[in-house]
Amino acid sequence: MTNTAVERLLQEHVPVITKTMIDHIESVDCPKQIKEAMLYSLNAGGKRIRPILLVATAKSYGNVSQAAYNVGAALEMIHTYSLIHDDLPSMDDDDYRRGKPTNHRVYGEAFAILAGDALLTESFALISSIAEDEMTPRDLLWLTKRLSEASGARGMVGGQVEDIEGEDRSLTLLELEWIHRHKTGALLEFAVEAGGVIGQAPERDLEYLRTFAKHLGLAFQIKDDILDIEGDEALIGKPTGSDTSNKKSTYPSLLTLEGAKEKLNQHITTAEDALERLSIEADDLLQILHYVAKRDR
Amino acid sequence: MTNTAVERLLQEHVPVITKTMIDHIESVDCPKQIKEAMLYSLNAGGKRIRPILLVATAKSYGNVSQAAYNVGAALEMIHTYSLIHDDLPSMDDDDYRRGKPTNHRVYGEAFAILAGDALLTESFALISSIAEDEMTPRDLLWLTKRLSEASGARGMVGGQVEDIEGEDRSLTLLELEWIHRHKTGALLEFAVEAGGVIGQAPERDLEYLRTFAKHLGLAFQIKDDILDIEGDEALIGKPTGSDTSNKKSTYPSLLTLEGAKEKLNQHITTAEDALERLSIEADDLLQILHYVAKRDR
Repeated sequence: MTNTAVERLLQEHVPVITKTMIDHIESVDCPKQIKEAMLYSLNAGGKRIRPILLVATAKSYGNVSQAAYNVGAALEMIHTYSLIHDDLPSMDDDDYRRGKPTNHRVYGEAFAILAGDALLTESFALISSIAEDEMTPRDLLWLTKRLSEASGARGMVGGQVEDIEGEDRSLTLLELEWIHRHKTGALLEFAVEAGGVIGQAPERDLEYLRTFAKHLGLAFQIKDDILDIEGDEALIGKPTGSDTSNKKSTYPSLLTLEGAKEKLNQHITTAEDALERLSIEADDLLQILHYVAKRDR
Repeated sequence: MTNTAVERLLQEHVPVITKTMIDHIESVDCPKQIKEAMLYSLNAGGKRIRPILLVATAKSYGNVSQAAYNVGAALEMIHTYSLIHDDLPSMDDDDYRRGKPTNHRVYGEAFAILAGDALLTESFALISSIAEDEMTPRDLLWLTKRLSEASGARGMVGGQVEDIEGEDRSLTLLELEWIHRHKTGALLEFAVEAGGVIGQAPERDLEYLRTFAKHLGLAFQIKDDILDIEGDEALIGKPTGSDTSNKKSTYPSLLTLEGAKEKLNQHITTAEDALERLSIEADDLLQILHYVAKRDR
């Protein structure tokens, strides 16, 4: 499926987000090996879905300031660090990501760990150096707090912990949802919430934005599981059926394929409903929802 | 050497600093395995020299608020995460720290990496949740910025990178000093600077405080190198002479033992001079300087 509205969003914002990350890291006065290792993973591509959601939300409220790109870049740096650490031999032990050797395959395990640590740390350096005429210190501090909560033990890291813990047994639907809501959902919720705050959305909109993000994230995961069963390997770029052969708990394994599709549709509907309750038109967010939930790759 | 003034400082502040860290982590709603792994390393002891410096500096300006303990706790959490990651098999591969099994020996490598990540992240969560009536959002944001700079690629992580890079060759004195100023010096400088800001020290004092911290840090390292040669194994609690057998570049190996002692005295004198230029009496800081530079263990 091509979604021209989303393609346009990506074309408009992805280069700016990437440039913001690269420029920040290039500006850091540090040993060249660690800079190179950080830049390698930041330049390795990826959908940039988190910062795009953030910028699109801010834009829905009429704001596309450099602050939105800076916070989006900080968020993507955290996502990137988490991928570097997830790929390590003691975690998922992956040799390739997006067709390129993983960070530790190129720079060694020690530097990959340190590059991840440094990216996480630089994310907070980037947010806290946003100029006061872009955002108030109070709002920036609030973003720092929320980002650290979303990415730490009560968010993303906690999700990764439970994912590892649950590897060798069948999960319940509740457990599976908990893992997704933390491992990937927490940063997606931060993206939309931060976009709302940067766009100065009214307080009651923030609640609907969080609901939207939560269901968007779950729809994304369910779609991933469904594509692993009936997706086109040529389009996805990796073999399908890996979840089944890994005996991994997935939505289809717990709900059947039909049940998973029904669940997917429920989340899409709930997310759409949340968008309709906003005080503004949020067509870009609706397009992103359809893009991630109805994609064929 | 016993230094009763410093013993008193430690007795007064270490329990509060430790409690602040533990209470913060206990309050985090997260999987129990990761909470346990974080608490294990926070409870493993250590001199708490960084938060003590921070609190003692703030106290020199008449301030020992909970904010000083909170920022000190955040700083010690970053120091603790760095030890967990440094001990990993792909880094220093240490099985014991302070007589206890290292984090990855107890919780496995994956959880040790994640516990480090989570502690680093929680450090920013702790600072950004300090109440506005304790410190202004502007000051808290500034502390966040400085802490991320001190602990990231331009500070501590950068020092660790160069330390690894320099392992297999002789370093010049300049290179050795660069590594120490980054790997350990950056957090020490942050400690003293943050204490000054929390104590609302006048601007020109901050410069002298940074000078003090810089020379305190170098004195500390040189003393470490000297103790490795002529220290009493029973007092230090580990075998001496390890630097020589490792062919590690140290101050004595580059300057001779006598030269290293002379260098140590120069740093102590410069640090003392900086303290004398402060607008206030800083007897606690002077005592800490003598404690770390003249210790016999």
